[in-house]
Amino acid sequence: KINSDRLWDSLMEMAKIGGTPKGGCCRLALTDLDKQGRELYIKWAEEAGCTVKVDAVGNIMCTRPGEDMSLPPVGTGSHLDTQPTGGKFDGVYGVLAGLEVVRSMNDHGIKTKHPVEISVWTNEEGSRFAPAMMGSGVVSGRFTLQEILDTKDVDGLRLGDELERIGFAGETPVTGRNFHAFFEAHIEQGPYLEAEEKQVGVVTGGQGQRWYNAILTGRESHAGTTPMHLRSDALIASSQLVLKVEEIAKAHPPGCGTVGFMQVMPNSRNTIPGEISMSIDLRHPIDEELTKMDAALKAAIEEIEATGPTVSLDPFWYYEPIHFNETCVNAVRQATVDLGYSHMDIIAGAGHDACYVSDFAPTSMIFTPCLNGISHNEIESTTQEECEGGCSVLLNAMLTMAEV
Amino acid sequence: KINSDRLWDSLMEMAKIGGTPKGGCCRLALTDLDKQGRELYIKWAEEAGCTVKVDAVGNIMCTRPGEDMSLPPVGTGSHLDTQPTGGKFDGVYGVLAGLEVVRSMNDHGIKTKHPVEISVWTNEEGSRFAPAMMGSGVVSGRFTLQEILDTKDVDGLRLGDELERIGFAGETPVTGRNFHAFFEAHIEQGPYLEAEEKQVGVVTGGQGQRWYNAILTGRESHAGTTPMHLRSDALIASSQLVLKVEEIAKAHPPGCGTVGFMQVMPNSRNTIPGEISMSIDLRHPIDEELTKMDAALKAAIEEIEATGPTVSLDPFWYYEPIHFNETCVNAVRQATVDLGYSHMDIIAGAGHDACYVSDFAPTSMIFTPCLNGISHNEIESTTQEECEGGCSVLLNAMLTMAEV
Ligand SMILES: NC(=O)NCCC(=O)O
Ligand SMILES: NC(=O)NCCC(=O)O
Repeated sequence: KINSDRLWDSLMEMAKIGGTPKGGCCRLALTDLDKQGRELYIKWAEEAGCTVKVDAVGNIMCTRPGEDMSLPPVGTGSHLDTQPTGGKFDGVYGVLAGLEVVRSMNDHGIKTKHPVEISVWTNEEGSRFAPAMMGSGVVSGRFTLQEILDTKDVDGLRLGDELERIGFAGETPVTGRNFHAFFEAHIEQGPYLEAEEKQVGVVTGGQGQRWYNAILTGRESHAGTTPMHLRSDALIASSQLVLKVEEIAKAHPPGCGTVGFMQVMPNSRNTIPGEISMSIDLRHPIDEELTKMDAALKAAIEEIEATGPTVSLDPFWYYEPIHFNETCVNAVRQATVDLGYSHMDIIAGAGHDACYVSDFAPTSMIFTPCLNGISHNEIESTTQEECEGGCSVLLNAMLTMAEV
Repeated sequence: KINSDRLWDSLMEMAKIGGTPKGGCCRLALTDLDKQGRELYIKWAEEAGCTVKVDAVGNIMCTRPGEDMSLPPVGTGSHLDTQPTGGKFDGVYGVLAGLEVVRSMNDHGIKTKHPVEISVWTNEEGSRFAPAMMGSGVVSGRFTLQEILDTKDVDGLRLGDELERIGFAGETPVTGRNFHAFFEAHIEQGPYLEAEEKQVGVVTGGQGQRWYNAILTGRESHAGTTPMHLRSDALIASSQLVLKVEEIAKAHPPGCGTVGFMQVMPNSRNTIPGEISMSIDLRHPIDEELTKMDAALKAAIEEIEATGPTVSLDPFWYYEPIHFNETCVNAVRQATVDLGYSHMDIIAGAGHDACYVSDFAPTSMIFTPCLNGISHNEIESTTQEECEGGCSVLLNAMLTMAEV
């Protein structure tokens, strides 16, 4: 059994770093607050007897020794960065559940054959720097280290420079990582567990994603003197595109389509907007459907271009639906049964570091419910009991694979 | 006759202050660049023998003495501030045409009974601080001085503080101004003079305007895990509103409707937007039609609210269509005839300081063509000949009213 109070207290302690008035957390990747969060976590991991390493993309690896150090570790972990309007649990829960697993093993004097390793992956959110899951993506080989270090945020700051600045450009190479098995605990961030009244989600895979940047170019002109029929208004075009993205998602259930980011230029109330930068996020659990959504988006853009403004579309990120490893999925399901938790199989709607870890190691995930299915919102909420459930399942699944 | 080369050279010299790579000008109200522009102009005005005063809202008054200083001045002038993607002529032309009138009077040793006064009005553009035409609006009594000083820009900087900072919080009271007549020269900023191949527009009035701020509130949530039917997406709602504004304008020709400003919160690509701030600008030359547009906007917002998000609408600025003084309009028309310029009557689509000056003094305006009718754009363009035409008409109209 894990120590539920200790896990909860650590979550609440970590949530103070970047805590927001509405009870959420804003700890964007590679900011000073991210540094503070990382340092607190490292302190706790060292107190729990772990050795700590940081790799060249800022991933943190904390290892509890196993009896046979030549064996690959059984891994867990998630991320400490948040959305601008993030909650206290998204990501952090998976990291601190991993820490609680180690602390509990220490409490009970448990020895494992395999070492146990907790990972904090860099920039999982993909909010400040896009795309998401960068740290795990570099380790899996989906991204080159260089391209990730060269990524810039909206203010033009380079990821590699920010990593140096906060002191987390580590020396461990990003290559050669291996896990005997990897489990990530995470809040569901969606409504299904709550709707079905289940305590644990046995995650069998993750839906596919396509991310785009679009730049729409019209012509700046005076809002009072330019007749309606002589305008080339980039914001009209982008508004049409926003509504098209919604329409495309609705036409491909249970797909999702979202425009979360938009910048208007020159953003002056009496100038017709000349240029819009916007993001597009399309998702579907079935790759063929995601392909159709991509085609529908391109067709929609052609239609919009026929009205005047030009649209340049950069499809800079794609990954296909992920299927987790059967042994790991079964280990999670068996643990929920052994511990008497109600459970259901579920597909992750969000991207998770586990999706990329599963490229090179047997992997699965454990979901716990969250209030009203709301995440990426300061009001994101879950209970101590729900956190305890997922963490207990994590402990048991890890013990199975790490061989006590 | 005025000195066309000198007018053009002054325009090009002033355009260097805030000059942009695309040949435009970014000299936002009460920035350091606005300060530089104001100082250069004051230097020129003093060299031309004018006395200079600055009032409490930063309006600059440069006076060329008349034979009878007890008479109210014949005024002219416009503004030196620009849009973020402004051109070299919008506003500046009216100020420097005024200066050229004084310089030409000096060249020819002309004496007038009435003093001649050139005004630079503070924050005509309404881009950095809204609404527009603030300096003339305070003098006309449309706004109180205090409410204008308390206006904030998007970064929360207070107009009064910015005015102090650049050294243009003057000592002259804003009350008690008077003109025997006031003429403002300005580029048309629209397509009509060019389309009709006329050199001068005799401006008979200005269309009415309604400006609004809207805040649309939905609910932030995860872009990958929130099913489409459970979303409350503020950007979807604002996109519907942008398209409605266009529809409303098109349904009330020749009305205009524009959303030029929009901010998305939290502006993260994988978070469904929870809050949008946006501007709405509606215009029509007939007040009854503008009232209908306002009603249609409110109805559209009710429809959008029925879909989930809430909309708070702040109709913070309205002014009815303006009709200029017949004597002043005739003075302009007569000057174009006397000088042999082709001309047409025209209604201003933009707001101008002359619209507010006409509250308390006989007023009219002189329009000159601009290339392709484009303004509020760095590529805004006009010719030296066109500038000369408008300035010559200004000189003649002013001489008529100032009594040589
Ligand atoms: N877990 C999570 O919210 N990840 C962010 C990446 C995504 O947008 O799915
Ligand atoms: N002249 C001009 O562009 N004024 C700005 C105010 C308006 O939007 O009409």
